[in-house]
Amino acid sequence: MEKKRTDARATPTPALDRGRATRRRLIEVTAQLCTERPGGEVSVAEIAKAAGVFPNQVTYYFGSKDSLLVHGAFLCLLHDTRRIERIGRQAPDAATFRRNIARAVLALPSLPSVARALATGIAKPELAPVIDQHLQLLFRQSERFVSQLVDTRGWSTRRPLNVEARTFWSTALGAVLLVRAGAHGSNAELDLAGALTVHDA
Amino acid sequence: MEKKRTDARATPTPALDRGRATRRRLIEVTAQLCTERPGGEVSVAEIAKAAGVFPNQVTYYFGSKDSLLVHGAFLCLLHDTRRIERIGRQAPDAATFRRNIARAVLALPSLPSVARALATGIAKPELAPVIDQHLQLLFRQSERFVSQLVDTRGWSTRRPLNVEARTFWSTALGAVLLVRAGAHGSNAELDLAGALTVHDA
Repeated sequence: MEKKRTDARATPTPALDRGRATRRRLIEVTAQLCTERPGGEVSVAEIAKAAGVFPNQVTYYFGSKDSLLVHGAFLCLLHDTRRIERIGRQAPDAATFRRNIARAVLALPSLPSVARALATGIAKPELAPVIDQHLQLLFRQSERFVSQLVDTRGWSTRRPLNVEARTFWSTALGAVLLVRAGAHGSNAELDLAGALTVHDA
Repeated sequence: MEKKRTDARATPTPALDRGRATRRRLIEVTAQLCTERPGGEVSVAEIAKAAGVFPNQVTYYFGSKDSLLVHGAFLCLLHDTRRIERIGRQAPDAATFRRNIARAVLALPSLPSVARALATGIAKPELAPVIDQHLQLLFRQSERFVSQLVDTRGWSTRRPLNVEARTFWSTALGAVLLVRAGAHGSNAELDLAGALTVHDA
């Protein structure tokens, strides 16, 4: 997973390795807490305790708690999307694909945390670069997944794949905002499957 | 706008009227600040100052700052939707309607604040009833608007109007989350118009 930086220095110092490992551990612990408590509050104190570090190391490695929460929420989403892709590959036809993907995405434990992290980003422009980086990765991954599937099955989409990916994730994130914030009503009233234009040729 | 409560007591006391007026003023001031500073931070101190009340009156009337922000963001959205409806009524055909509504909604000053208020609601279940109340009002109003327009023009939609309204607002809110949190890319990459199924008969 982690590539050694051989360009900048021939052999990384042990301190640098330790730093990377701590950073990684903090993100993993945060992702784990996001999974266990979808969209719930997570404090720096409990992240630090679970990772076995001092609370001030959060600021040292990430600048702020919010920045760590962005990393944690997106790592959690990255795990979740593996499951979504498995579900997508099992669909025998495009209509089942649209329906099953929509249902599974609305139930992802990571989405409420991702929605909250993005909302924090609205008020804190300093988070924009790290949020953008994670979103571009998400979009590219979704595009690649749909592209491969569409090619092997002979399906098509009614709009370019980059538009399909962004529009689908917009609807999914907005739906999670509405439903998790308290909008009454059943999932049947929300046509997330309609945000996918994948269809049999 | 404001109906006198004649059931509970024959003549409202002046104190009750004053309370209602203060509550109303606090919401209006917050809505105004949301419009001027889309999605930005608004403090209790500046709301109270602008409304000419003591900061502790926010808690007295709303329980919490977050609850007031929900009311303020949705009042701001209510004003914005009037503009959207005007734009919608001017469209000569369904395709123009979809395109113009989508473009105008993405530029609404209120949406970033509404998205942030909903994200706060994810972590604070005590806000759910007030959020639900505002959302149901928004959905009903959108349904009524589309229903009237579709009837007079002889247009149709490909799904029930309640589903159309929820799905459209989900995509709009998600799109605002992505774009305002820092996702690079143009609005052309996001097919919000595709979240409307209104079409000529």
